[in-house]
Amino acid sequence: MSARSAVVLLSGGLDSATALALAREQGFDCYALSIDYGQRHAAELEAARRVALAAGAQHRVMRVDLAAIGGSALTDPAIAVPESPTTGIPVTYVPARNTIMLALALAWAEVLGARDIFIGVNVLDASGYPDCRPEFIAAFAALAALATRAGVEGSPCRIHTPLIALTKAQIISAGTRLKVDYASTVSCYQADSGGRACGRCDSCRLRRAGFEAAGVSDPTRYQGL
Amino acid sequence: MSARSAVVLLSGGLDSATALALAREQGFDCYALSIDYGQRHAAELEAARRVALAAGAQHRVMRVDLAAIGGSALTDPAIAVPESPTTGIPVTYVPARNTIMLALALAWAEVLGARDIFIGVNVLDASGYPDCRPEFIAAFAALAALATRAGVEGSPCRIHTPLIALTKAQIISAGTRLKVDYASTVSCYQADSGGRACGRCDSCRLRRAGFEAAGVSDPTRYQGL
Repeated sequence: MSARSAVVLLSGGLDSATALALAREQGFDCYALSIDYGQRHAAELEAARRVALAAGAQHRVMRVDLAAIGGSALTDPAIAVPESPTTGIPVTYVPARNTIMLALALAWAEVLGARDIFIGVNVLDASGYPDCRPEFIAAFAALAALATRAGVEGSPCRIHTPLIALTKAQIISAGTRLKVDYASTVSCYQADSGGRACGRCDSCRLRRAGFEAAGVSDPTRYQGL
Repeated sequence: MSARSAVVLLSGGLDSATALALAREQGFDCYALSIDYGQRHAAELEAARRVALAAGAQHRVMRVDLAAIGGSALTDPAIAVPESPTTGIPVTYVPARNTIMLALALAWAEVLGARDIFIGVNVLDASGYPDCRPEFIAAFAALAALATRAGVEGSPCRIHTPLIALTKAQIISAGTRLKVDYASTVSCYQADSGGRACGRCDSCRLRRAGFEAAGVSDPTRYQGL
């Protein structure tokens, strides 16, 4: 393992694919981690495999069954994914998801000896999730420094959020410059098994508007087209 | 669900069984959560089932395969469990384990609407794990307040650590007063499939010394007896 290894959380969506490309641009040897948490849009895990392979990154899928506890439209089929804007924290919020994902990334980083974790969270064009905010990330970094052997030994993990202050259009522009194949990515909350997007959910709306604002042709494969 | 529900992390060992009893004594309706992380001492999960049943608590086992990433004597059979005292953070430390367990407890608490989480960490007679210290717990509580809907809405989860400043003898005295059946619990890092303890690992040594110091007859079933 090189001295510049990083664990990159990779959902298979547009944002994390871009975060992976930015980590590679910074010279990191990337270990991509995807979490199979029982999401209804399992096609994003297939997308993550394609994206990691294209980036030449090691890839690991860890499974943790959040569907068993439910509480989110992304894990409970009985809760519909909204197809028009809502206010407040939306029902697509998955309780403690980013805390769990960062905790698993921290475990893998500790075993690898990696001192850097990348996560593609973003506040501007995000959906109002509490665990995408800079203050949440800062609190996790403080926790990581206390939680681990690396922290006790004085070299805690850094949590990188290269997208956090970017618009969706800026993210897409950065990824396009780095030749991210966005056709391989799946952002839709209710993608079909082939990874085709609904075009109506919050994630699809933000993504489509991002391509328009960036002036980049939208390569997304939509259902019914 | 009552207004006083709590998620209690329950490993099946002596400490967490006592934490569960103390949570019940405080009047909480307890939801016990055990994490099957690929520990070699899987008999502790059977113990957790017995303890939860005896306490009349709801019980959930969530699985997350930390054995796949290794890095600990508790998850990697190639790393021997020490049978005499060591210095520093021991090889039985499981990278980020308590961060992961608390994150999963936080998720379940959020779905249940519970505002209280109990974890049986302890610094005095613990084994030098970074994620058993009060400063780690305080950092997790700060994170939880930012990570969740409950936190954003002004009623974040409290993280209760009723054992944190107790000696093992004090823990055993408290549990004995509350009629915890310690014969049902498994603390040994290399218990056999029947839950019988080795009597030699760090966890066995601390446990045995605790019963002696508490003046309580040790009900542990040891291997070869």
